[in-house]
Amino acid sequence: MLILMKTGATPEQIDAACNAVRDLGYVPHPIPGSIRTAIGITGNKGPLEPSIFTRLDGVADAVPVSQPYKLVSREVKPEDTVIEVMGAKVGGGALCVMAGPCSVESREQVMSTAKHVKDFGAHILRGGAFKPRTSPYDFQGLREEGLALLAEAREATGLPVITEAKDTESLDLVVKYADIVQIGARNMQNFTLLERVGEIDKPVMLKRGLSSTVKEWLMAAEYILSRGNRKVILCERGIRTFETATRNTLDLGVIPMLRAQTHLPVVIDPSHGTGYAKGVTPMARAAVATGVDGVMVEVHPEPSKALSDGPQALTFPMFEHLMREVRGIAAVMGQPV
Amino acid sequence: MLILMKTGATPEQIDAACNAVRDLGYVPHPIPGSIRTAIGITGNKGPLEPSIFTRLDGVADAVPVSQPYKLVSREVKPEDTVIEVMGAKVGGGALCVMAGPCSVESREQVMSTAKHVKDFGAHILRGGAFKPRTSPYDFQGLREEGLALLAEAREATGLPVITEAKDTESLDLVVKYADIVQIGARNMQNFTLLERVGEIDKPVMLKRGLSSTVKEWLMAAEYILSRGNRKVILCERGIRTFETATRNTLDLGVIPMLRAQTHLPVVIDPSHGTGYAKGVTPMARAAVATGVDGVMVEVHPEPSKALSDGPQALTFPMFEHLMREVRGIAAVMGQPV
Amino acid sequence: MLILMKTGATPEQIDAACNAVRDLGYVPHPIPGSIRTAIGITGNKGPLEPSIFTRLDGVADAVPVSQPYKLVSREVKPEDTVIEVMGAKVGGGALCVMAGPCSVESREQVMSTAKHVKDFGAHILRGGAFKPRTSPYDFQGLREEGLALLAEAREATGLPVITEAKDTESLDLVVKYADIVQIGARNMQNFTLLERVGEIDKPVMLKRGLSSTVKEWLMAAEYILSRGNRKVILCERGIRTFETATRNTLDLGVIPMLRAQTHLPVVIDPSHGTGYAKGVTPMARAAVATGVDGVMVEVHPEPSKALSDGPQALTFPMFEHLMREVRGIAAVMGQPV
Amino acid sequence: MLILMKTGATPEQIDAACNAVRDLGYVPHPIPGSIRTAIGITGNKGPLEPSIFTRLDGVADAVPVSQPYKLVSREVKPEDTVIEVMGAKVGGGALCVMAGPCSVESREQVMSTAKHVKDFGAHILRGGAFKPRTSPYDFQGLREEGLALLAEAREATGLPVITEAKDTESLDLVVKYADIVQIGARNMQNFTLLERVGEIDKPVMLKRGLSSTVKEWLMAAEYILSRGNRKVILCERGIRTFETATRNTLDLGVIPMLRAQTHLPVVIDPSHGTGYAKGVTPMARAAVATGVDGVMVEVHPEPSKALSDGPQALTFPMFEHLMREVRGIAAVMGQPV
Repeated sequence: MLILMKTGATPEQIDAACNAVRDLGYVPHPIPGSIRTAIGITGNKGPLEPSIFTRLDGVADAVPVSQPYKLVSREVKPEDTVIEVMGAKVGGGALCVMAGPCSVESREQVMSTAKHVKDFGAHILRGGAFKPRTSPYDFQGLREEGLALLAEAREATGLPVITEAKDTESLDLVVKYADIVQIGARNMQNFTLLERVGEIDKPVMLKRGLSSTVKEWLMAAEYILSRGNRKVILCERGIRTFETATRNTLDLGVIPMLRAQTHLPVVIDPSHGTGYAKGVTPMARAAVATGVDGVMVEVHPEPSKALSDGPQALTFPMFEHLMREVRGIAAVMGQPV
Repeated sequence: MLILMKTGATPEQIDAACNAVRDLGYVPHPIPGSIRTAIGITGNKGPLEPSIFTRLDGVADAVPVSQPYKLVSREVKPEDTVIEVMGAKVGGGALCVMAGPCSVESREQVMSTAKHVKDFGAHILRGGAFKPRTSPYDFQGLREEGLALLAEAREATGLPVITEAKDTESLDLVVKYADIVQIGARNMQNFTLLERVGEIDKPVMLKRGLSSTVKEWLMAAEYILSRGNRKVILCERGIRTFETATRNTLDLGVIPMLRAQTHLPVVIDPSHGTGYAKGVTPMARAAVATGVDGVMVEVHPEPSKALSDGPQALTFPMFEHLMREVRGIAAVMGQPV
Repeated sequence: MLILMKTGATPEQIDAACNAVRDLGYVPHPIPGSIRTAIGITGNKGPLEPSIFTRLDGVADAVPVSQPYKLVSREVKPEDTVIEVMGAKVGGGALCVMAGPCSVESREQVMSTAKHVKDFGAHILRGGAFKPRTSPYDFQGLREEGLALLAEAREATGLPVITEAKDTESLDLVVKYADIVQIGARNMQNFTLLERVGEIDKPVMLKRGLSSTVKEWLMAAEYILSRGNRKVILCERGIRTFETATRNTLDLGVIPMLRAQTHLPVVIDPSHGTGYAKGVTPMARAAVATGVDGVMVEVHPEPSKALSDGPQALTFPMFEHLMREVRGIAAVMGQPV
Repeated sequence: MLILMKTGATPEQIDAACNAVRDLGYVPHPIPGSIRTAIGITGNKGPLEPSIFTRLDGVADAVPVSQPYKLVSREVKPEDTVIEVMGAKVGGGALCVMAGPCSVESREQVMSTAKHVKDFGAHILRGGAFKPRTSPYDFQGLREEGLALLAEAREATGLPVITEAKDTESLDLVVKYADIVQIGARNMQNFTLLERVGEIDKPVMLKRGLSSTVKEWLMAAEYILSRGNRKVILCERGIRTFETATRNTLDLGVIPMLRAQTHLPVVIDPSHGTGYAKGVTPMARAAVATGVDGVMVEVHPEPSKALSDGPQALTFPMFEHLMREVRGIAAVMGQPV
């Protein structure tokens, strides 16, 4: 059930509606919008009688919501969510490019990459300091030292930083340094971590799990929103299928559906989505042509020496080429880059 | 093993090289190219000694081929294959749009659809007369009557016709009426049918199987080429994965890889690839942005009354919109439409 | 809709009910059972009014059928179908073991294999004469020569022969020699081939497609039954998933569901289902423990020299061991072997 | 690289070999076995020269290990790992049955279920107190109250308790109450949680991820062993595939492979593996027939009222039937139950 307040409803009227929800033993979630405020209701098992709410002052309508997710739904909030951080916007019409190394490996590596991606037009710097790795014997990231290097690169370039929080233990540290907190694919259903980032006041980028359906992905985002953090970006990074020629299968076909179902901004990661450097630029173009809010790509000064994911990393000249290509498609889509 | 003839090698020299292959008990496949002739060798189990061939007159080189497929490989034929039919080209730089109903249902339906897609700029008319259906109780197509209607539409519009041959039994009939013969996803490994279309002199469009790897798909094309028919178009139409929100998962991520590995033209079918009409235009744009040679889409005067695949069919206005959108992306890609 | 005749209904009453169906423009499918005759109706789009039929003499009931398949359904025919060929039974309580080489390669190979599998207790001899192969350059089978060798092995051992019909072209030849006609996984939705084997009077074993759902599999069987051939055996042989450690993923979890939904006998092929010889016997035991009617396994005198599928072939001693193991489990299941 | 000490090597010799490893900058992992001690080496990038170690006193051999996992490998420890808790054994020849409700819901529910499964022969009581749920609005478990009820049930029945730790936050609490700590499928690559349970001194049951390969699963177990906890049980519970007729696809075909590759005990969960109650007993039989160490099943006094996973829960009479069936198969396998 979703309560839609009239345009111009007073704070008191909104409070009264929330109280009516609480009186029934449920939880109200007021969602301020540019046009009007909506109030999501969670905790109810079955359908509610709309007239309980429509007879209150300031209430325009009370509509049943057909999906198991609510706060992430366009039914609840028709306008696109726009997330702004240090002047960079994700959502709202422009195309946002996030770029940087898979892992932060050294000062020189991250500074030179940050400088180059900035020069070529990237808006946000990515880089991993805490790396979840399949093998316990692989490089696990520089940890706080890596975060500090990202902060140094931010200072030098003015680019906001996105980096992954791989567990609740390191979350505070990541939140301290990062501008956007990334939740990786393997953690998409780490519900405790989702609840924790639902309580921070920084934007969160939620990657789709390797074998997660769109519905499960939106429910995972709902975990974050239901704790109060409305600044969530969705990132499609490829799913696992029978095809092993590519590292993952980038599932662009769900984007139009996602656009219709949720107001959250959507970003594509063609680096993990394909796993091979020559596939990244064509798929970045394709992603932009589907109509997304951003792309995230991995760039490395010397991919052959990367400590993680070298085969999918772009060199600086390859990234410069990607930016030119992506700008061409974005122009047709009416998106400034 | 691939024998590369010198530029300007004489027919006699080519014959001599072919005979040297036959003397070893293998089969030579001369492949004329715009620059020079190559000769593929099939039938050998292990590697061959290059000097057997390089000492012959007119032979430039003899190179081991690393893939299990040969005739479809760019190693064997570096230049793009271009297929031309009634003035429409698939491959060679322009973007080809194939459009029409899933099934031919009536004269009025096919004529009006053909006229509209022609007016909006389609190059080839699609339509199914023999329909493979999951249930024996579903509409199986108008068969020869459907083929005749397609021919009538061709006459009226000047558009060449692509239609599916669902078995060897109906192949002669399909070849009689069609300009391009389509092999459906379920028949991708119907090797007898592949061999048969390998012997016709009309182009063949080979759809990727629902759970076929790129390698298996190229091997299936190799069946056709190895029988002499070099005019093969590959069509990606979505693979089967765990995600059921879309009918199939359109696998655009393999396109850059396919472009590098094969000289055959590649077409995308976003109608089957997504299964929902609102997904078709965005994914057609994405397909063009990956750099393909064509798109194939389903159009119906009244999708809600279609006898097959209604949910993914575009109305006439939706198709007009698709053409505008696709032209925008194609322009950036340097592709006339 | 399914018409259930009373026990003891006369042939005339059955005819009258069939005619009532024809009068409505639909097709009746009388299905004789040990208890009573049922009549399936196909061709109707929507639900029918039961009273049209229940007021006829000899009709016990007219029930809507909830599944898209009818003739394969237990709703239509509650008793297990039992298929008997040369004294070997598939279905009906005993466990049937089908064994033999993947491909017939030579007289010596097939005769020695046939003799050994017979000695160790197999009931049916398998062997491929027409082989569908991913590559056009791989061994395609001995064709009619292979069929003749299988017939010779039948004569020598008394074992009935199951072999694959890979296309409609070779079907007549296969039917001439084989006792059971196998339809391979890649042909599960080769509807023309299904229709053709629906018209022969020999049993057909239908393998599940690599990426076919249970529902699609049953619909494929329905194609055969709807043409009149009720002697269909279903064979699960593994599906394609993300896991590549095994050749396929043997899907035993659908067996209990299949048993509830269809009266057709079910056989498991653990050779293709696992793809490695050491996995075959454990999975054969597991298959029997789920409660199936048979297992089919590949046996070769010298697996390392097999022209196809060597890694999954059992040696003679391994097959003898399998028989002992399988008998142990079958005894607990109350199944004679 | 794995150093194999001679039978009867002294502690000093073992120490000296470990120090030789440390001198190279790597980490030694001594693994005491019943026959002799092996020392795994981690941290090295490339191959090591065996003679560095073989010239030391007490060293029998130094062998390169071919797999990316070491401590879980049979190459490193050929004998089966046996885990014993309160008299119940997992591994070592007997069949262990773990049973109980999906979620602990009330004292009456857990006590009555514990009593019944004990009476019918179960060895370990399962029950979830912390439930990871797809939706934030679903029942999340009774938390500590649930753990206390499990402890009460243990006291009443003498059955040890297995329950899930869904995050590092609740781990201490779970460890306090549980006898075996379960890591759920969604947490299989929650590396921080794996590291944490690698440091506790209670056994851990690691469920396979929904789309995890066998190799990734073994690497996840390696995380636990590499932190010192060698008491790990692997649990296959079904993978995600295109087939939706069953909740998951129970992948029994990897069991024989797993048995060859690792010394860790293996348990099957046919409840999650099939998702429907009628599939559980047949698949439990099948699991035992593949040769596993245990099965884990969900039992509920009234499945239709279960707060989670009701469709797959067995009633008490169904569980009694399962025990009878499973005993029959286990007897053939030579496994006491």
